[in-house]
Amino acid sequence: ETNFDLKEHPHSRLNILTGDWILVSPHRTKRPWQGKVEATQADDRPQYDPACYLCPTNKRADGSENPDYKGSFVFTNDYSSLLLNTPDGGLNEDELLVANSQKGICRVISFSPRHDLTLPQMTTKEISKVVDVWQSEFEDLASYPWIKHIQIFENKGDIMGCSNPHPHGQIWAQNSLPVEVAKETQQQKLHFEQKGTSLLADYLALELKKQDRIVFENEHFAVLVPFWAVWPYETMIVSKRHITNILYFTEEEKHSLADAIRRLTIRYDNMFETSFPYSAGMHQSPVNSGEHPYWHWHMHFYPPLLRSATVKKFMVGYEMLANPQRDITAEFAADKLRGLSEVHYKTRE
Amino acid sequence: ETNFDLKEHPHSRLNILTGDWILVSPHRTKRPWQGKVEATQADDRPQYDPACYLCPTNKRADGSENPDYKGSFVFTNDYSSLLLNTPDGGLNEDELLVANSQKGICRVISFSPRHDLTLPQMTTKEISKVVDVWQSEFEDLASYPWIKHIQIFENKGDIMGCSNPHPHGQIWAQNSLPVEVAKETQQQKLHFEQKGTSLLADYLALELKKQDRIVFENEHFAVLVPFWAVWPYETMIVSKRHITNILYFTEEEKHSLADAIRRLTIRYDNMFETSFPYSAGMHQSPVNSGEHPYWHWHMHFYPPLLRSATVKKFMVGYEMLANPQRDITAEFAADKLRGLSEVHYKTRE
Ligand SMILES: O=P(O)(O)O[C@H]1O[C@H](CO)[C@@H](O)[C@H](O)[C@H]1O
Ligand SMILES: O=P(O)(O)O[C@H]1O[C@H](CO)[C@@H](O)[C@H](O)[C@H]1O
Repeated sequence: ETNFDLKEHPHSRLNILTGDWILVSPHRTKRPWQGKVEATQADDRPQYDPACYLCPTNKRADGSENPDYKGSFVFTNDYSSLLLNTPDGGLNEDELLVANSQKGICRVISFSPRHDLTLPQMTTKEISKVVDVWQSEFEDLASYPWIKHIQIFENKGDIMGCSNPHPHGQIWAQNSLPVEVAKETQQQKLHFEQKGTSLLADYLALELKKQDRIVFENEHFAVLVPFWAVWPYETMIVSKRHITNILYFTEEEKHSLADAIRRLTIRYDNMFETSFPYSAGMHQSPVNSGEHPYWHWHMHFYPPLLRSATVKKFMVGYEMLANPQRDITAEFAADKLRGLSEVHYKTRE
Repeated sequence: ETNFDLKEHPHSRLNILTGDWILVSPHRTKRPWQGKVEATQADDRPQYDPACYLCPTNKRADGSENPDYKGSFVFTNDYSSLLLNTPDGGLNEDELLVANSQKGICRVISFSPRHDLTLPQMTTKEISKVVDVWQSEFEDLASYPWIKHIQIFENKGDIMGCSNPHPHGQIWAQNSLPVEVAKETQQQKLHFEQKGTSLLADYLALELKKQDRIVFENEHFAVLVPFWAVWPYETMIVSKRHITNILYFTEEEKHSLADAIRRLTIRYDNMFETSFPYSAGMHQSPVNSGEHPYWHWHMHFYPPLLRSATVKKFMVGYEMLANPQRDITAEFAADKLRGLSEVHYKTRE
């Protein structure tokens, strides 16, 4: 017999997707904050900024000119961290100095010609068009036989390293599996081999039964705070159907995903009545490397804000050297997100 | 035949201590920066601040009064994320919701009564006293038989989540192995079982032969940029003797460690002529869990600054979802650190 309580006592939780653990300190919310306070971001951008390299008709670093695009616009990152023409090669000295050449393609996707918008300020139809582009870009990149993994993501807000407030995301595709994806591959594969089912389908069924960590759902997706969330208001969008990657999304599912993204990001903005910063991205099956029936498409949102629009969670000393740590529980965060309006605070009368 | 070149082409490198990989994009340093610029930290603190909970004779949150201490001062964190009296317990629902109770002790160590100092501004003798306290605290915490791991660390600078500029560090001790330490345990053990030698001793021998990534050395320690460094100017202090933990340090070694920390942090401050932020901490053998002959004591420094005192590296979208990534090579960083003076810029005439 024990009076151990997840709501009260420090504990660790297992991330079933990566196999890693996270330290939860539910009692610690009372800690006063005398540390770093972020500046609130100026939020009165013009619809068009002549100095922005993402706005229609403007010049980019490579000298080319953006078209007068109306929906989304995709181009190769002018400062790609992965390149097409990397020669093959590697290094292995006594298994102590080990390196491999990496080949890849980095693309940028402007979500809208409007410099002043963000995803939560776009309509479901407009976001649907972005989902269409994600799907067609995935298809195009997967047609390079040497590409094994395609990472679709967005950094939103300057505290998330975003260097231009024009609404945009990125895709980095490369010839090998990144660390986080390799971990999720292994965990999902293990579960599938042992039980013959999708790890995330089983997890989602349990969460839908419990409801404690569900934020909301629509016809094809559920939005929840994972039991093992690291960031204060971290969430995950999980497809109800066991789909391995975005190529298999139907028109209805793409529209549903746009709906889920819109409603989630509006709730985020309403949390502290600020443009809520985050890094978000999809995890899905590797490509050009056989079948991955155990892979279950999902999208992570990692937002750093903790107490207010200006105080974030720092993943520093203990977290970098030992273990991720959080101060509020996943259940508390889900409850807070559930209580928020789906009408954006800026459009309210 | 290949013309693959680590200095020029994108590649991945293996972290032999954790088994993880890191993506290096050496060509990417030319990227312009229009993103977040940090405020330079005010650096004219008084020697004594009546509002600081670390200064001698001041009141703390728990109502107690700090002694009029002269060297270091240790106390239990008033907002500990781990607690002594957590009841045992756990949760396991279908291997999908898995949690364990965590018990621990969090302590704070003020490095000096002087509110206005930082480690690089203290003398080697003063830093030696801090090393003495680290050793005696490690011994004291290891005397609790249920404590399995002791994490000694420092967050320096508000951009590293440090909530008080008074020079101080922390110790979090707990009843289980944190994720990063578990990974390093596994990798060192594997090497030891296969070759009968310390992984880090073999690695250090190779680095001392090559010199490319060595910043400096003294009698008992080498300071180097690890081949697999993630943060732009990340370094590691490695003991030349194969020592499992700080308990085995001799008086000479403790003095040498103080010398290494002082010289390294002065170089850091001189890099951009600013109080250089970082998270730093020791990795060493677990306690109260048998022998760990393969463990080799070392200390990591993770500093975020990239281009200047105000532009840091962001570990965001791609890094959180896929893989850590860096824009300068470890060799470039070591070269830069090697070229810096060991006289602190503030004390120069
Ligand atoms: O304990 P402090 O200094 O208040 O807090 C700081 O260090 C802790 C340990 O790395 C982190 O969990 C916090 O996010 C950070 O702000
Ligand atoms: O590509 P950007 O927007 O210039 O850069 C941003 O996203 C990248 C991918 O997550 C990171 O490597 C950079 O640190 C960050 O500033």
